[in-house]
Amino acid sequence: MSGDDLAARVQRLEDIEEIRQLKARYCAYCDAGYDADGIASLYTTDAVWDSGRTFGRAEGREGIRAHFQGASSRLSIARHQIMNPIIDVDGDEATGEWLLFQPCTDTRDDSAAWLAAGYRDRYRRVDGRWLIAETLIDVAFFAPYDKGWAEQRFLTGREP
Amino acid sequence: MSGDDLAARVQRLEDIEEIRQLKARYCAYCDAGYDADGIASLYTTDAVWDSGRTFGRAEGREGIRAHFQGASSRLSIARHQIMNPIIDVDGDEATGEWLLFQPCTDTRDDSAAWLAAGYRDRYRRVDGRWLIAETLIDVAFFAPYDKGWAEQRFLTGREP
Amino acid sequence: MSGDDLAARVQRLEDIEEIRQLKARYCAYCDAGYDADGIASLYTTDAVWDSGRTFGRAEGREGIRAHFQGASSRLSIARHQIMNPIIDVDGDEATGEWLLFQPCTDTRDDSAAWLAAGYRDRYRRVDGRWLIAETLIDVAFFAPYDKGWAEQRFLTGREP
Repeated sequence: MSGDDLAARVQRLEDIEEIRQLKARYCAYCDAGYDADGIASLYTTDAVWDSGRTFGRAEGREGIRAHFQGASSRLSIARHQIMNPIIDVDGDEATGEWLLFQPCTDTRDDSAAWLAAGYRDRYRRVDGRWLIAETLIDVAFFAPYDKGWAEQRFLTGREP
Repeated sequence: MSGDDLAARVQRLEDIEEIRQLKARYCAYCDAGYDADGIASLYTTDAVWDSGRTFGRAEGREGIRAHFQGASSRLSIARHQIMNPIIDVDGDEATGEWLLFQPCTDTRDDSAAWLAAGYRDRYRRVDGRWLIAETLIDVAFFAPYDKGWAEQRFLTGREP
Repeated sequence: MSGDDLAARVQRLEDIEEIRQLKARYCAYCDAGYDADGIASLYTTDAVWDSGRTFGRAEGREGIRAHFQGASSRLSIARHQIMNPIIDVDGDEATGEWLLFQPCTDTRDDSAAWLAAGYRDRYRRVDGRWLIAETLIDVAFFAPYDKGWAEQRFLTGREP
């Protein structure tokens, strides 16, 4: 094998690791009271963040910043626990799928809830650094703690 | 260090990453209403899937396909959230340990439940692609949501 | 790129993978009834394990061993499910951040509980093998199952 081929394989593994940590940093900013500046810094200027009707949609880095500035007033506790990454790198573009399992507290009535969702992300390398270009969130359930997802799959007003 | 040694080390890292994604794909097929064809495509022809008495045992790719064809009628929601991988590669064979934490809905009475288990897998490289050769599932608890695992560790009829 | 540079990049990826598995082994020993000898074997002789007031603090490998010898009498079930690693390697030192989401059973009254916490670890390479040099645990909630974290954020006597 030529050294160039091997270098490309190492680069791919580094890219996957950098993207995993990028997503973990997104979650850490969310868990830290939704640090809007931190979150925005991880997205491309033309990025899209779209959760459907659950939490709405934001466009562009500035739109995403504005969207998250209000988020901690909606969820006081929100643990963004992510698992099952499937990351596929193609040059300076990449895709990622994750599971999210998030215990949280809904500030509307100070009640505990479970959010289970899938993330489908696109990533782009910009100036040598991976950023998130798109986050699509597919909510499986968003259930009140006192009832569970079988009895009430979605919080009132949070139906997808 | 010789280039061959370095290539072998990169290969090992690629193998671990491919196995992690293989297991995540297994989980994604399970979460998608137990896609039996998708699940079967990830197993070797002589594979074993064994959960003990909880969900039974299946042998061979075709046995595994048949086993999962009925699964979505038993669990309507099942989020296969996996964590804590310990993957050990030895040539074309590998082993993996994982934790599973699965919120699910039991269709027998449309009730929510928590399944916590350990996976012990064996993997084999076949024609250059990693497949699952064995899945053993060790159930720690499979508890009704309304009681929790301390009050009732296993669903009725799902004792291990 | 020189072969030496590439070898250093591969080494960094191997270090990250070894540290991930080190942490997973720590969790596996904890889940196996808090195997105190196993846990101690993963720490440096001068290590610190500090959970604040929740479970106290231990110093040194022997102090950590002694600390965990009593742990299974406090938590009979404890699933150490870890996610969101951010690992940063610098030569023979490294840091790691993780999320922990732990369903457990409190033996004081045989009740189920949820522990959500952040780990901040330091690791050190000793004789070619990565060990844990420091574990700091920041508890977000430690809530009784029957109430959830919004109604009662911390178990009685387990306030941080």
